[in-house]
Amino acid sequence: MSDNTFGKLFRVTTWGESHGPAIGCVIDGCPPGMRLTPEMIQSALDTRKPGTSKYVTQRKEPDEVRILSGVFEDDRTGGPVTTGTPICLMIENVDQRSKDYSDIRDKYRPGHADYTYEAKYGVRDYRGGGRSSARETASRVAAGAVAARVLDRLFDGAVKIRAGMVQMGPHKVDRQRIDWDSVGDNPFWCPDPVAAQEWEAILDQARKDGSSMGAMIEVVAQGVPPGLGAPVYGKLDTELAAAMMSINAVKGVEIGEGMNAAALSGIDNADEMRAGNRADNANRPRFLSNHAGGILGGISSGQDIVVRFAVKPTSSILTPRQTVTRTGEETEIVTKGRHDPCVGIRAVPVGIAMMACTLADHALRHRGQCG
Amino acid sequence: MSDNTFGKLFRVTTWGESHGPAIGCVIDGCPPGMRLTPEMIQSALDTRKPGTSKYVTQRKEPDEVRILSGVFEDDRTGGPVTTGTPICLMIENVDQRSKDYSDIRDKYRPGHADYTYEAKYGVRDYRGGGRSSARETASRVAAGAVAARVLDRLFDGAVKIRAGMVQMGPHKVDRQRIDWDSVGDNPFWCPDPVAAQEWEAILDQARKDGSSMGAMIEVVAQGVPPGLGAPVYGKLDTELAAAMMSINAVKGVEIGEGMNAAALSGIDNADEMRAGNRADNANRPRFLSNHAGGILGGISSGQDIVVRFAVKPTSSILTPRQTVTRTGEETEIVTKGRHDPCVGIRAVPVGIAMMACTLADHALRHRGQCG
Amino acid sequence: MSDNTFGKLFRVTTWGESHGPAIGCVIDGCPPGMRLTPEMIQSALDTRKPGTSKYVTQRKEPDEVRILSGVFEDDRTGGPVTTGTPICLMIENVDQRSKDYSDIRDKYRPGHADYTYEAKYGVRDYRGGGRSSARETASRVAAGAVAARVLDRLFDGAVKIRAGMVQMGPHKVDRQRIDWDSVGDNPFWCPDPVAAQEWEAILDQARKDGSSMGAMIEVVAQGVPPGLGAPVYGKLDTELAAAMMSINAVKGVEIGEGMNAAALSGIDNADEMRAGNRADNANRPRFLSNHAGGILGGISSGQDIVVRFAVKPTSSILTPRQTVTRTGEETEIVTKGRHDPCVGIRAVPVGIAMMACTLADHALRHRGQCG
Amino acid sequence: MSDNTFGKLFRVTTWGESHGPAIGCVIDGCPPGMRLTPEMIQSALDTRKPGTSKYVTQRKEPDEVRILSGVFEDDRTGGPVTTGTPICLMIENVDQRSKDYSDIRDKYRPGHADYTYEAKYGVRDYRGGGRSSARETASRVAAGAVAARVLDRLFDGAVKIRAGMVQMGPHKVDRQRIDWDSVGDNPFWCPDPVAAQEWEAILDQARKDGSSMGAMIEVVAQGVPPGLGAPVYGKLDTELAAAMMSINAVKGVEIGEGMNAAALSGIDNADEMRAGNRADNANRPRFLSNHAGGILGGISSGQDIVVRFAVKPTSSILTPRQTVTRTGEETEIVTKGRHDPCVGIRAVPVGIAMMACTLADHALRHRGQCG
Repeated sequence: MSDNTFGKLFRVTTWGESHGPAIGCVIDGCPPGMRLTPEMIQSALDTRKPGTSKYVTQRKEPDEVRILSGVFEDDRTGGPVTTGTPICLMIENVDQRSKDYSDIRDKYRPGHADYTYEAKYGVRDYRGGGRSSARETASRVAAGAVAARVLDRLFDGAVKIRAGMVQMGPHKVDRQRIDWDSVGDNPFWCPDPVAAQEWEAILDQARKDGSSMGAMIEVVAQGVPPGLGAPVYGKLDTELAAAMMSINAVKGVEIGEGMNAAALSGIDNADEMRAGNRADNANRPRFLSNHAGGILGGISSGQDIVVRFAVKPTSSILTPRQTVTRTGEETEIVTKGRHDPCVGIRAVPVGIAMMACTLADHALRHRGQCG
Repeated sequence: MSDNTFGKLFRVTTWGESHGPAIGCVIDGCPPGMRLTPEMIQSALDTRKPGTSKYVTQRKEPDEVRILSGVFEDDRTGGPVTTGTPICLMIENVDQRSKDYSDIRDKYRPGHADYTYEAKYGVRDYRGGGRSSARETASRVAAGAVAARVLDRLFDGAVKIRAGMVQMGPHKVDRQRIDWDSVGDNPFWCPDPVAAQEWEAILDQARKDGSSMGAMIEVVAQGVPPGLGAPVYGKLDTELAAAMMSINAVKGVEIGEGMNAAALSGIDNADEMRAGNRADNANRPRFLSNHAGGILGGISSGQDIVVRFAVKPTSSILTPRQTVTRTGEETEIVTKGRHDPCVGIRAVPVGIAMMACTLADHALRHRGQCG
Repeated sequence: MSDNTFGKLFRVTTWGESHGPAIGCVIDGCPPGMRLTPEMIQSALDTRKPGTSKYVTQRKEPDEVRILSGVFEDDRTGGPVTTGTPICLMIENVDQRSKDYSDIRDKYRPGHADYTYEAKYGVRDYRGGGRSSARETASRVAAGAVAARVLDRLFDGAVKIRAGMVQMGPHKVDRQRIDWDSVGDNPFWCPDPVAAQEWEAILDQARKDGSSMGAMIEVVAQGVPPGLGAPVYGKLDTELAAAMMSINAVKGVEIGEGMNAAALSGIDNADEMRAGNRADNANRPRFLSNHAGGILGGISSGQDIVVRFAVKPTSSILTPRQTVTRTGEETEIVTKGRHDPCVGIRAVPVGIAMMACTLADHALRHRGQCG
Repeated sequence: MSDNTFGKLFRVTTWGESHGPAIGCVIDGCPPGMRLTPEMIQSALDTRKPGTSKYVTQRKEPDEVRILSGVFEDDRTGGPVTTGTPICLMIENVDQRSKDYSDIRDKYRPGHADYTYEAKYGVRDYRGGGRSSARETASRVAAGAVAARVLDRLFDGAVKIRAGMVQMGPHKVDRQRIDWDSVGDNPFWCPDPVAAQEWEAILDQARKDGSSMGAMIEVVAQGVPPGLGAPVYGKLDTELAAAMMSINAVKGVEIGEGMNAAALSGIDNADEMRAGNRADNANRPRFLSNHAGGILGGISSGQDIVVRFAVKPTSSILTPRQTVTRTGEETEIVTKGRHDPCVGIRAVPVGIAMMACTLADHALRHRGQCG
């Protein structure tokens, strides 16, 4: 990972600001010969699109993706395929409404990167947070759709990534009720339909109160074979932690037992092993529990890979907060505009995308080193 | 970060296995002209050395570091200084006792990387965990001592990194009693002297029970100026998360409010700002709270940088656990040997080292891009 | 350098195919606060634009650049400035005439990458060479214009890069007549006005003969301070060699004395030193010759940096050449289309761009490590 | 490539100074399960060892390599094999004779990096050139031996790398007499036995004259399959150019026709293709010539890969040369010590090593991206 690029063999570089003419990404290192249509990317993008429910920003962005390079209508395979060269994806910014943001030019919004960008660069694109806006994550979701194709190709469809919001504010799902197939049925990507129902009123109230809510997202990758990852800084968990922490507003990342591992004893935490189902997987052991979250020594074990991350409550709220101006004068700010009352909601597809990109990269790296 | 290297301008590559002839690291990109003696590194190494109390492994390793390159006795400055070329540090493995480990050659230890290394590479150095052993972290601590020198030089001694164990098993410190200056006074690097006292009996008991305990480590960097970090994958928090998650046995990483951010409302989570103390820092704002942990949009804000990470309980325990052999036979294993009953203890100096390396790297990168 | 990215702190990733919708690049790591207008980039692009003389391809491409990100109209500095975030530049392909190329879909053109792309990727965008087309170099020239701004800023305008064609086919310039200021006065970027005059008829004849001509380009950077570069693989000459060799059709790169260094004796090759002009440069020595081409041990010496590279004759010629089809049938090919009779001509601005990018990157890296 | 590391999947980081305690390298990313003994590396090292003939430095260095990590005595394969973890190789410096160099502490030697290191870093290890000494290339040769094992494994022994000195000073070999199998029979690694005989007296005379001689080295890789390399900065020729230019004293690099390509016409330069030998290689075409040197569009074509590089004459000569001191006083210097009269000789095994490392890296990268 370096500044605006992540990945090593499957490398994604994103570019663009919230209110510039466009945002996008360049994917370098994608395997050739994979069928890839704009629709495949578009359908992923549509999952994080603004304006899909009243619980996300009402900014009207069609988020239409264009593939500018790296794909060619191959006459032999009868369709658009990746050529192995860089894939540039572009999404034009349509509904920019710059004037909404003009009054924040001179005030630092608490919880935003206004002050720190200015401290670092001496200049900032204040319109909608510029580069620090969560709008950048649209590019990640687009790249994630390509990564998902890589996983499909490499593992013949065996890898499946599920994600959902498992906590909103202090309200957690009931893990007994988790049904990943239901996440698309509610506006929260919540895998517990009962909780999802309850959260509607809670989030409505938070918004009425001029506030916002934090959230916890869980991402699970099923079907990942053992052997992906590498010691000691290229560990799969290391790079998943980086991938998730790089998402806007994320303040913590857990693998498997996560922070709770601190509270456990060695006896309780052990994931014991039994002989696997030989029919399927020769000598692959069967684990009796998954405290490890599917990763041991930085390398996948063949169990489900389980990652959770915490998203702080949206910093843009209607309740006035104390702040200062660029010239150091004390003042207050109320952040108007079209903001998500719980940014965690739209972080769900982003978490999927980051998981897909990280796994695709590691799968290619593994193939490179180990064949 | 890539496989065995981390950092971008201050790059650390570690090498070596637990029971090979030696371990060490190569530091590339270190600024020239910095005084650097073996003693400066040795004193850091001594903080994570085995055998310093009954709560850490009794393996007898002097951990004497040799500087093999990159430092020269400059006749003008009158002492050993860095030359800007790669610094290779080597620590010989002395007390290897390979025979202790011969019986684990054929069994996968639960919680260890035995199975996953074998799944990935088809071969593994089973002696003491080979490359996956926490012994590798000695190299990190050595590199961290060099990084600390870089910070001293760049920030004239203003950056101070504190760390300690703030939770052992379910037992947390009382945050009212935290005194960072006391961490060296007890075998746990615990900043709460009362808790430290209580933990002794608790950990003794866990060991007698053939078990082990998890831990939570907190690392705080004080005096870091605003402006370090970069969007959007080179974020300071992204790379700190990676740095900490790469430490053996770590299962979760938090910045500031961390996982608890999910439970907060936007009103409560806002770090409001007031005008700073002009005498000191011109227009630098003063924050009224630090939920953000000193990082906004991936860039340091000038507040304390606060990172916590959870270390799982030592997997090597004396209670028999079910497992399988390399050939898939079901069996049990008791991991004898000289193991830390709470690996979190020795993770404290490693956390300091990773913080120092990450900050040094970002400080150089910032200077490179922004002058 | 890695696949489609070059540079380390000033990183340029290019994307796009000859006949796709657009080409472009993403520049990451650019210093903030630098004035940057589309015109600054456009004027560089215009120097390599197709159709400027009868000696370059007649493809009609306006090569209009759009800045999609990384620049903001700063109200304080009164104009567009870099913000330190990724700069995405896009050039739409207008005059694609895909049908010109449809007959080469099934035949491998000698000297082109048709066969090797197919061997590597199993698929290729055959239209105009796809990714392997020299059209990609427009993106480099655009990036080079930004790099030139970086050099201006860092060295206050002291660094000046000159380049020209010093040989066409077997015909070399007379080095006594070299006048760098005259390169813009002829269609060859030739610094010897007499040679330029003679080359017109020679190149006309080559084209009439259904052939093409090779060329030698010389790039000279004046005013580079001592100290840029780094041992041992990040050497300035190493990275300049890579930069130039990466340009389409380049088959050799020389620094200073170049290949001729093999023929020299140690006595003749020594660049002796005398005391410098103290008024200007304190202790900086004055060199009595420049066999080294301004680089010693991979680090700039303060002398002119002199690089030459050989460009092979255009492979697309009207004389039939033997080849095979994708299915292995023997055949002949005549490469019609709008081709440069001497691709070396348009390599001149590309050489300048690669020099600028390499120097800008090294200047930032030097500032990062050494302050 | 970045500073002291080269390669992307097969990454080599070298460290160490000419007169420090040791030199060495860390190889990260090596495939696991490859048999690797110290003897395999030692036999490569012995080819560039000092003191093997009167034409190379008489410094007495046994150059004994130790493998410090990354290899394990696997009980199943019955021998030492790579484990996939970093391989650290160390060579102790034995015959350092630091006092020989003490008088050059204050004078800049023409043609050496003394002045530029000082200009960059403000400090330098003046003993034998420190980091800029060609002694560093021993580490490359050691790494190259490991890379050769990778190639053997990946291509089942089909790739063979030959190299030799094809020119010394102005004296070239007769290409009709080239016999690669004879290079080991003379002290010059010259493939023309007649020329080798003549060069003895010539080099003796140069040394008696207090001078030294330049050289041209040719490296040929046979049996490389088509498809290695990548557009547009990861080109195989780009990275070979970088690899060779990074060798001490190299001033120019050519692929295939090289600098001479500038003088050719398109008709003459075309490498025409005919149908291949179907028995062997299905549709792989047969080329009628190899002006391209085995690389088209940055990707191997299956032909021999042909690289040449020019090595300048040894800068350390007994004839006094004018120079200045660190404090700017004008003086003369005679470089005594034990120097190679033609450093090109020992550059031959280094060229082989760099070719092997570059090919191994590209082969792994290709496998990663394209399977």
